[in-house]
Amino acid sequence: MMFSKKEYMERLQHVKEKMNQKGIDVLFISDPANMNYLTGYDGWSFYVPQMVVVFLEEEEPYWFGRAQDVNGARATSWLSPCHLLSYGDEYVHSKVKHPMDVLAAWINQHKKKEKRAGVEMEAYYFSPRALQCLESGCYQMTFEDAHLLVNEVRMVKSDKEITYMKKAGNIAEVAMQAGYDAVKEGARVCDVAAAISHAQLSGTAEFGGDYPAIVPLLPTGVLTYAPHITWTDEKIKSGDPVIIELAGCYGRYHAPLARTITAGKPNTVFKNLSEAVMEGIETVLHQVKPGIKCEDVEQMWQDTIARHGYCKDSRIGYSIGVNYPPDWGEHTASLRPGDQTILKPNMTFHLIPGIWLEELGVEISESFVVTANGCELLSNFPQCSYS
Amino acid sequence: MMFSKKEYMERLQHVKEKMNQKGIDVLFISDPANMNYLTGYDGWSFYVPQMVVVFLEEEEPYWFGRAQDVNGARATSWLSPCHLLSYGDEYVHSKVKHPMDVLAAWINQHKKKEKRAGVEMEAYYFSPRALQCLESGCYQMTFEDAHLLVNEVRMVKSDKEITYMKKAGNIAEVAMQAGYDAVKEGARVCDVAAAISHAQLSGTAEFGGDYPAIVPLLPTGVLTYAPHITWTDEKIKSGDPVIIELAGCYGRYHAPLARTITAGKPNTVFKNLSEAVMEGIETVLHQVKPGIKCEDVEQMWQDTIARHGYCKDSRIGYSIGVNYPPDWGEHTASLRPGDQTILKPNMTFHLIPGIWLEELGVEISESFVVTANGCELLSNFPQCSYS
Repeated sequence: MMFSKKEYMERLQHVKEKMNQKGIDVLFISDPANMNYLTGYDGWSFYVPQMVVVFLEEEEPYWFGRAQDVNGARATSWLSPCHLLSYGDEYVHSKVKHPMDVLAAWINQHKKKEKRAGVEMEAYYFSPRALQCLESGCYQMTFEDAHLLVNEVRMVKSDKEITYMKKAGNIAEVAMQAGYDAVKEGARVCDVAAAISHAQLSGTAEFGGDYPAIVPLLPTGVLTYAPHITWTDEKIKSGDPVIIELAGCYGRYHAPLARTITAGKPNTVFKNLSEAVMEGIETVLHQVKPGIKCEDVEQMWQDTIARHGYCKDSRIGYSIGVNYPPDWGEHTASLRPGDQTILKPNMTFHLIPGIWLEELGVEISESFVVTANGCELLSNFPQCSYS
Repeated sequence: MMFSKKEYMERLQHVKEKMNQKGIDVLFISDPANMNYLTGYDGWSFYVPQMVVVFLEEEEPYWFGRAQDVNGARATSWLSPCHLLSYGDEYVHSKVKHPMDVLAAWINQHKKKEKRAGVEMEAYYFSPRALQCLESGCYQMTFEDAHLLVNEVRMVKSDKEITYMKKAGNIAEVAMQAGYDAVKEGARVCDVAAAISHAQLSGTAEFGGDYPAIVPLLPTGVLTYAPHITWTDEKIKSGDPVIIELAGCYGRYHAPLARTITAGKPNTVFKNLSEAVMEGIETVLHQVKPGIKCEDVEQMWQDTIARHGYCKDSRIGYSIGVNYPPDWGEHTASLRPGDQTILKPNMTFHLIPGIWLEELGVEISESFVVTANGCELLSNFPQCSYS
C-alpha cells in the first residue's frame, strides 16, 4: 500500500464532509485517480466501467468492477473482500447489457435509505449510458453533479504525497536528460520518444518509474506550432526545434517537465522566444507563495512577457498530482484569469507557459510545490538548452 | 496522411449509409479512434472535449476542438481549414463554461435543417455533461444513441490498413523479444517494462513505432492472478511467472501479443496450464475462416480446454484496429457465447484466452487477420517459452 490506512481514512473524512455540505448521501466515483486516492486501487482496467461508491453513513467504500479485476483490487486496495463487488464478463462491451445495471440492482437491494446521489458528470470513463443505467436502476434516488468533489480534496497534498512527487520529479530529470542525449541531427523522433519512455519507466537506481498519464509529446520542426502532436519516425534536421514535454511518474504521482531544444545552433527567433518564456517563469516562481490567487500568478506572467512583445491567451498552468491517462492535470485550479483559488502550502502545480508563433512554439515548464514561504521545484534541470 | 482522400471518403460513405438507415442526419463523434478513422486527426488532445461532426447532407465533416489544437488538425487531417472549429482556452476544465455549448451554438446558427442527432452514448471521452450541453443547446433536435455506428464500419479493414497492422505485428515481435531478454532473476519489473516500451516506440529500422493504447501489462509472481496490474519496481525471483501483454502500434493500428514466461525453470502447474492454452489457440486458429460466427470460435476453445479440466468464463478475444488509450479493442465483435458476428475476410482479432487460477495466471495470445480461406497471424513469435 502506498499510504497508511489512516491517511486513506482522513481523505475519506474530507470527502464525507463535502458530501454532507452538498446534501449527498451516496457518491459514485468513476475517475480512476479519485478511485485510487480513496482506496489505493491501481490497475489498467478503466477501459471497462468501474466505480468506487462512498456511502455517507458507512465507514468503508465499495469498489465495483469487472470480476476479472477483483484480484487486482484485493492486491492494491485497502478494502475488505466483502466491499469488492463485481460483474461478469458478459457485461464487458456488450450491446445489450451494462455493468451499471448490476450496481444499481445491488444498491436497490442493499441500500434503501440513501436518496441523494452525487455523480461525476464530467469525469473520464463515466459515459452518458452509465448515468442512464444508474438513474433508471436507482429510480428512488435523485442525481446531482458532484464533479470535482474528490478532486478538490486532492489539491493540498500530504507530506507523504509530496515525497512521491519529488521522486517523480527525479524521474522527470532522468527522462529529460535521456531526451537531450537522443536529440541530434539524423536521429528519428520515435527513437527520442523511446529513450525518454525507457527512462520514465526504469526510473532511478533507488526506485522505479510508473507510466505517466500522457506519453512524451515531441512536436518537431514546424510541428512545434501544434502542442499535442506526439511523434513521427522522421529524422531530425539540423536546426530543428524539438519540444519535449514529459512527466516523471511515481506511484501514479506526476511531475511534468517541458523543455525546447534545437538540433544544432538555435536561431535568433528561437532564442528570443525562449528568453521571454524563461524570464516569465523566473518572475512567477520568485513571487509564488501561500495567500496569492491563481489569477495573480497568471497576471505576473502577462506583465513580463508583454515587455517582450508577446501575448498568450491560454492558461499557463494547473494543479497536478495522482493521475491516470489521459491527463495528469487535476482539473481544479488553473493559473488563468478568473481563477480565484488561493495558494496554500503543499498545493502542487505545473507551470507551463508555452508560446506558439505561426511556425515555432517554445515550451519550457516547471512543476512546483507551494511551501510555507514560497515554492520549491520538483525537478532541477537547466531551462536553457543553448550557451 | 496515412490514407488517400479516396479511402477517407469511402469510410464516410459507409458511415452515412448507416446514418441514413438509422434516420440520423447529424452524427457527433467523440471516440478518438472514430475521429481519426474519418478525418486522420491524430493528437493527444482527447483529455479535453472534442468532436468530429458528420452531416448527412454535407460532403466534409467538421472537426471541433481546442483552439490550441487546430494546428494539429491542420497537420494531420484532410479537412479544409474552414471545417476546423474551435473553442478558447477559457473553456478548458472550467467549472462554469463547457466547450459543447460553443459547438451547440454554432450548429444552431449554421445548421437549421438537421433534426435527428446521433451520439456515442458509451464512447470514451464523451461525458454526461457534454451530452446535456448538446441537448440543451440544440433544443430543436432529438438525440439518440449511435454508439458503435462508426466502430462497426471499422471492423472490415482495407488492404492498406492490413499492411499497417502487419507492421504493428512486426513491432510486437521486437517488443516481446525485448521483454524476453529483460526477464531474469534479479531484474526489476519496471526495467522489463522500460525495455519493452523502448522497443515499442523505436519500432524497426524500417519504420518507427507509435504509442500503444495500453501500456505493457506485467503481472509477476502471484500477481499473475490479476490480469490488469501494470508493474512494480520489485525484483523478479527465481521461478516467478511473468505475464507480458503488449501491442505493437503503427500509425495508431494495433497488433496485441501476450506471452507468459518464467524466470528460471517453470513448474508443472505452469507447464500444464500453458499447454492447455496453447492447444486451445492452435485448435481455434486451425478452424477460423470466413463464414463462421464469433461464438463458434469460443465454442472450439471451450471444447479443447474442457479436455484439460479447465474452464474459463470470460470472453477469449475481440476485434482490433485503430485506437487510442485506454483500449485497443474495437468494442464490436467479441469471441464469446451469443456473439453472432460472422467472420469476413480482413476482419482482425486479438485471440487472448488467458486462464487464471487462484495463484497463477497464464496468458498467451495471437492477433490474426481473417483471410479468404482461413486466417493469418500478425506476429510470428514462439508461443512456448520453455523447452
